[in-house]
Amino acid sequence: MANDELILLDFWPSMFGMRLRIALAEKEIKYEYKEEDLWNKSPLLLQMNPIHKKIPVLIHNGKPICESIIGVEYIEEVWKDKALLLPSDPYDRAQARFWADYIDKKLYYSARKIWGANGEEQEAGKKEFIECLKVLEGALGEKPYFGGDNFGFVDIALIGFYSWFHSCETYGNFSTEAECPKFVAWAKRCMERDSVAKSLPDQHKVLEFAKTLRHKLGLE
Amino acid sequence: MANDELILLDFWPSMFGMRLRIALAEKEIKYEYKEEDLWNKSPLLLQMNPIHKKIPVLIHNGKPICESIIGVEYIEEVWKDKALLLPSDPYDRAQARFWADYIDKKLYYSARKIWGANGEEQEAGKKEFIECLKVLEGALGEKPYFGGDNFGFVDIALIGFYSWFHSCETYGNFSTEAECPKFVAWAKRCMERDSVAKSLPDQHKVLEFAKTLRHKLGLE
Repeated sequence: MANDELILLDFWPSMFGMRLRIALAEKEIKYEYKEEDLWNKSPLLLQMNPIHKKIPVLIHNGKPICESIIGVEYIEEVWKDKALLLPSDPYDRAQARFWADYIDKKLYYSARKIWGANGEEQEAGKKEFIECLKVLEGALGEKPYFGGDNFGFVDIALIGFYSWFHSCETYGNFSTEAECPKFVAWAKRCMERDSVAKSLPDQHKVLEFAKTLRHKLGLE
Repeated sequence: MANDELILLDFWPSMFGMRLRIALAEKEIKYEYKEEDLWNKSPLLLQMNPIHKKIPVLIHNGKPICESIIGVEYIEEVWKDKALLLPSDPYDRAQARFWADYIDKKLYYSARKIWGANGEEQEAGKKEFIECLKVLEGALGEKPYFGGDNFGFVDIALIGFYSWFHSCETYGNFSTEAECPKFVAWAKRCMERDSVAKSLPDQHKVLEFAKTLRHKLGLE
């Protein structure tokens, strides 16, 4: 697919965008990165994702693929020749999809409550967030990666959140490493990969962004 | 897979359970149906879905697959020899997954507000519900089914909601057919299939169930 045109509409602190960046890096696929301003969305974004109007959107030869997990599956199906991200066994694939879905349904919203709220809601978010991480730690078990020996689909779905941990810890006043040491060991293992290291922003830069968001939300 | 043991933990009015019933019927797969009492969940359900504790759960040779859309993909991947539900082209597959995800994120919650609330929230639910149906009608276009000429993945994800339309119309005081005639024509087309007709409960029985739920929720 040498002549393919591939564009990623993204926003640097997005853990959903990071999934596509990592998947594309794992497959060694070149693409054009276009940064969006979420407070002044481009006509291209509104045209390519008229339903949700959200990043990330992968545009392959003019056709949009929306929703990050669906985008990772698309990348997997189109570029099959290298770095398989999903296991081949149907049951293992279903398990990988289950955990990616769990991350979207549970972890995202609990993390958001920590930096995007105060008081009781923030406390509830912190409790849920740590519970989620413990559940995920249980799913990881003693394996190096969620799928076993190889970095793959669930790792890609999850690792972007790690760049937000410093913000969660700062506003929630807790230590992820003290609560979930195996989870943090897994995250550090992922960060050693080039595909991950170059796709995740610096956690201090994310904290600065979280501060800006909290000001916009009237929380500070 | 003649000696496979396949069990479906389900609850008759669940539009999510209906997805698995229809997919299994399309593939002509035999299974044991076990009705759950959601107010007194079985030890088997709690053991098989400890994370969400929700139906439907498909249990294949003792191993659980949770989350209905993931279950439909699992059925597709294990029983590949008949009635392919997803298109083969990666872009078309991504589109099918996008619409299934849209149904879960938008349609379910708007429908729920109509029968599960009163007053302003109910009115908001009705507005969102009709908007969702119009978006889906746009995605259907002039095709007989969402994937084109063949009944498939998005149809399976969506048609179960049709058994709840009578409840939504009763509590929301509107006519889906007047608002979205092409959508209703599609639903009636689906209902002509044996796999769908035998998997969906009678809409009047669903209304009786919705009444019971409203009493439990203190809405009547």
